[in-house]
Amino acid sequence: MIRTGIGTDVHRFAPGVPMWLAGLHFPDEQAGLAGHSDGDVVCHAICDALLAAARLGDMGSNYGTSEPEWAGAPGLVFLRETRRRVEAAGWQIVNVSVQLIGNRPRMAARRAEAEDLLTATLGADTSLSATTTDGLGFTGRGEGLAAIATALVQRT
Amino acid sequence: MIRTGIGTDVHRFAPGVPMWLAGLHFPDEQAGLAGHSDGDVVCHAICDALLAAARLGDMGSNYGTSEPEWAGAPGLVFLRETRRRVEAAGWQIVNVSVQLIGNRPRMAARRAEAEDLLTATLGADTSLSATTTDGLGFTGRGEGLAAIATALVQRT
Amino acid sequence: MIRTGIGTDVHRFAPGVPMWLAGLHFPDEQAGLAGHSDGDVVCHAICDALLAAARLGDMGSNYGTSEPEWAGAPGLVFLRETRRRVEAAGWQIVNVSVQLIGNRPRMAARRAEAEDLLTATLGADTSLSATTTDGLGFTGRGEGLAAIATALVQRT
Ligand SMILES: [Zn+2]
Ligand SMILES: [Zn+2]
Ligand SMILES: [Zn+2]
Repeated sequence: MIRTGIGTDVHRFAPGVPMWLAGLHFPDEQAGLAGHSDGDVVCHAICDALLAAARLGDMGSNYGTSEPEWAGAPGLVFLRETRRRVEAAGWQIVNVSVQLIGNRPRMAARRAEAEDLLTATLGADTSLSATTTDGLGFTGRGEGLAAIATALVQRT
Repeated sequence: MIRTGIGTDVHRFAPGVPMWLAGLHFPDEQAGLAGHSDGDVVCHAICDALLAAARLGDMGSNYGTSEPEWAGAPGLVFLRETRRRVEAAGWQIVNVSVQLIGNRPRMAARRAEAEDLLTATLGADTSLSATTTDGLGFTGRGEGLAAIATALVQRT
Repeated sequence: MIRTGIGTDVHRFAPGVPMWLAGLHFPDEQAGLAGHSDGDVVCHAICDALLAAARLGDMGSNYGTSEPEWAGAPGLVFLRETRRRVEAAGWQIVNVSVQLIGNRPRMAARRAEAEDLLTATLGADTSLSATTTDGLGFTGRGEGLAAIATALVQRT
């Protein structure tokens, strides 16, 4: 019994805010991501993909206004709790693939570090890729970042 | 023998048109979705994901101008017929995950209802999530709605 | 042991450049796609999905400035080499699904040809679908093309 799930997320750049992405801090960035949390689109897209695969709702239904203890939580905290909820529902994460879409920060130099962190946090192979949109759309104009993730889970 | 498929769909808002989404009517909405049908992006994205997984073409090749009997059909009718074509080709739907992207309507209050309807129509676990794009892009500006779906099918 | 991967790609239209898409030439198009290569978004999205599924990085880390011999290569060359790298790492491609998003060229008349070419190149079932965005976003305004792909691989 295997299931697929998909999730996307978008946050706009916020000047003067620290940039957190895939659970990592990027200290050289002049802008971070806005949002009720740290705006970590990579972690949020993964959470939505995992929750969808296990048919457990989405970020909003799991960590929204009805669960105020999660307001402002960092991306990795959402990942950890999502893994816990997915496993508690009787599913094991098979693997996750997530792509970051946008101009900055350059992920190449820290991709291996991010993949190892995500893989350890989820207890399952996680790959992180990055791409740009050739100057087109809101990501191309540097207004924000997007991420898209897919996940496989199987019955434990 | 398992196969994955992906599909996305976009329709613009059309004032004064009823809003149908995931096979449900949202009577409080002031605008619906434009399109040769009811513009149900959730159902259309699912159809494209299922047809792709079974390598049966796409919405255009299955329900386009060469098959005029499908013009204007509601989203659920496309879902039902797509399930029929996928199964007739020797595939069983394993599960479907679809995410609605945009500002309105708020799906949270009707997510369970929508998931049950989609799951019953497809005869396979279907999860529906929703997200916004933080005011960015055409979905953020409230010009229309997008949906993205992934599906697994297996040989019967 | 099965793994999923996802990839997207975007390139802007470049007037006077030949249009190559899914490994096919479209001689009637007045514009092609810009990029360090032929801008074949279909092939590039597939490569990113396959590399991600096998956790082998992305187009940038595999064919970027550190590997100048790949600069300007056509889409099919990237597909062939990606298949080689995925298989060399001990994975077999199960199937690929890719969707082209944009106004032109019309893929319908050549979809079967493109699917057969992609399937033969990858040695695995590949389905190609196409959709538009109802005039919305950069694809709707005819500024460029996007593609989104998902892939399954399994241990050999
Ligand atoms: Zn988010
Ligand atoms: Zn549609
Ligand atoms: Zn490209």
